[in-house]
Amino acid sequence: MRLEVFGVEGLPEIKAGDDLAGLIAEASDLADGDVVVVTQKIVSKAEDAMVAVDPDDPMSHKPVVEQESVRVLRRRGDLVISETKHGFVCANAGVDRSNVAADAAALLPDDPDRSARRIRDGIRARSGVEVGVIVSDTFGRPWRRGVADVAIGTAGVRPILDLRGTPDASGRELQVTEVAIVDELAAAAELVMGKTNNVPVAVIRGADPNWLGAGSIQADLVRPPAEDLFR
Amino acid sequence: MRLEVFGVEGLPEIKAGDDLAGLIAEASDLADGDVVVVTQKIVSKAEDAMVAVDPDDPMSHKPVVEQESVRVLRRRGDLVISETKHGFVCANAGVDRSNVAADAAALLPDDPDRSARRIRDGIRARSGVEVGVIVSDTFGRPWRRGVADVAIGTAGVRPILDLRGTPDASGRELQVTEVAIVDELAAAAELVMGKTNNVPVAVIRGADPNWLGAGSIQADLVRPPAEDLFR
Repeated sequence: MRLEVFGVEGLPEIKAGDDLAGLIAEASDLADGDVVVVTQKIVSKAEDAMVAVDPDDPMSHKPVVEQESVRVLRRRGDLVISETKHGFVCANAGVDRSNVAADAAALLPDDPDRSARRIRDGIRARSGVEVGVIVSDTFGRPWRRGVADVAIGTAGVRPILDLRGTPDASGRELQVTEVAIVDELAAAAELVMGKTNNVPVAVIRGADPNWLGAGSIQADLVRPPAEDLFR
Repeated sequence: MRLEVFGVEGLPEIKAGDDLAGLIAEASDLADGDVVVVTQKIVSKAEDAMVAVDPDDPMSHKPVVEQESVRVLRRRGDLVISETKHGFVCANAGVDRSNVAADAAALLPDDPDRSARRIRDGIRARSGVEVGVIVSDTFGRPWRRGVADVAIGTAGVRPILDLRGTPDASGRELQVTEVAIVDELAAAAELVMGKTNNVPVAVIRGADPNWLGAGSIQADLVRPPAEDLFR
């Protein structure tokens, strides 16, 4: 099995109301079965999920963080780890001032699964190809330094590959059985996007057809509070 | 930027004492700058980091889990989330019975950074190529269902790409600055390995030269207890 992972070059700076699907379809030569990973930042820009902040005050987005948090898990200094209305647990409730204008902060999209569906439907309408779409964002991890990209929305890519009952190479039933392929795809895409080089969309070509299918990040991948040992 | 991710096919079943570097070099056509990702399971087998368990008792590895845990963070039913001597926080202290003989359980390698260095040095000696090596394992996440592969050892791949002070595409200083590329590489590799198809080694070709360099997972990526908000 072989995957190719490459960035989509030449997208314009995205602004409110832009047709993301059309711009992505125009800038890339997509094929059936491709997985298209789109960073949250340009989805939020296109959907105008932005709020005004004081450009001279590096803390001016902090009240927005409180508004976007349904529950605060931890605070330390300026750092807030909270749960968003989507159920994501992340720093600053996903509110972010990087790669946006100095007087604005980006919020998470209202419904990132819906955002992914719109992009997928738009690419199909525009180019006639059936792709999977992932909306990705950059999250920290409690016990590991550094950040990594994960999926916050999906359309056409299964969040989890369920291998329960599948035998391993020795014929024994697998112990590790539910692989969050959608997060592994988001992580792979980040490698070609970087944070500084303005490549907000990547394509993964060569996806296993088993990865493609229906699913929702909010319904299938977010761990419900009842299962959560660390809230 | 474009990455290729592919599995190394045709490796034999690994047993204690095997020369992993030699087997990998023989089975693949590696080039300078490739990143070679090796799953923990075959590293543990080659290093004989295995213990005997009762094949008829699915709980017979549980005393080993307690021995391998320096601290238990949470228990629920059969599930133990604990910290290993390496500082990793994971289920069952990394003790795993998948893809091993029925009467054995695999432990984590004693020093996975050292394991990675040995494989890297062995590939250089055997093939004359300078590659990066990551030893990967499969971890759960507290607030997201499903598992994803992360790095537990590295040689020649920087754990974290440090972008502090780097401007974003708009010229503002980045807020998200330390990217755990080594975990994103491990996640990308898992996609071509799968859990059931016995492809325990993958190659990532096209790596950014900035990703290559010195570093240690234990020293650079494991979050020290003083920084940890969730222990």
